[in-house]
Amino acid sequence: MIKKVDHIGIAVSSIEEALPLYTDVLQLRLIRIEEVESEGVKVAFIDGGNVKLELLEPLHEQSTIYTFLQKRGEGIHHIAFGVSSIQERINELKTKGVRMIHDAPKKGAQGADVAFIHPKSTNGVLYELCEKLNKGETE
Amino acid sequence: MIKKVDHIGIAVSSIEEALPLYTDVLQLRLIRIEEVESEGVKVAFIDGGNVKLELLEPLHEQSTIYTFLQKRGEGIHHIAFGVSSIQERINELKTKGVRMIHDAPKKGAQGADVAFIHPKSTNGVLYELCEKLNKGETE
Repeated sequence: MIKKVDHIGIAVSSIEEALPLYTDVLQLRLIRIEEVESEGVKVAFIDGGNVKLELLEPLHEQSTIYTFLQKRGEGIHHIAFGVSSIQERINELKTKGVRMIHDAPKKGAQGADVAFIHPKSTNGVLYELCEKLNKGETE
Repeated sequence: MIKKVDHIGIAVSSIEEALPLYTDVLQLRLIRIEEVESEGVKVAFIDGGNVKLELLEPLHEQSTIYTFLQKRGEGIHHIAFGVSSIQERINELKTKGVRMIHDAPKKGAQGADVAFIHPKSTNGVLYELCEKLNKGETE
């Protein structure tokens, strides 16, 4: 079902302001910054060694990250599990009575197929299923 | 500074009620359940592949996890970085202007030395530094 934790999503007001903590203070490596228009977010991937940290900054007020920041403030947003055959995994979870936010995968950062599980089914934790298309990527 | 992400802490009202999601639905392996009296918590470690998930249940109302649940409800509580020479790491962070909750390590689960960084210094994320004494432990 689950292969590993692919990344941990962290909501920030400004990647530019948050980044020095990771790169300068904690001395972690910035992998890449990109914009995911479909999600209304700018994302920065940071190499945490065994797992990536994904800083999420809203691009506009329609972004779910904007809403999250308004409600909860900056902080940990979600945990993404790396999976294969994501549609099968979604179907499997639904068969087991788990409520999905997305019944079919949509495109996330790096062109990955992603789907979120509803936190009502997971004791308040927002879990993402994430399937990378380019499995040979070296990071 | 940071070697890897050791575990992700998740606050739950009841480990007994939360566990089937991880073991049955997500088919992850339960490593161990223990009580950490000094923190007033019962913890369940779950093998997420590359990183552990740590479910945290308060043992009493004086536990910081009890307070967290009252304020925020169930959900992701902290991210723990694995480090070596934890006291040196703490001193290094303080030199860099980072505010620590603990200026010296205290005992956490599995007898590890742990210290928390103040979320005011980390854009709202509660980060733990965690040094395992038994580095040869097979999990």
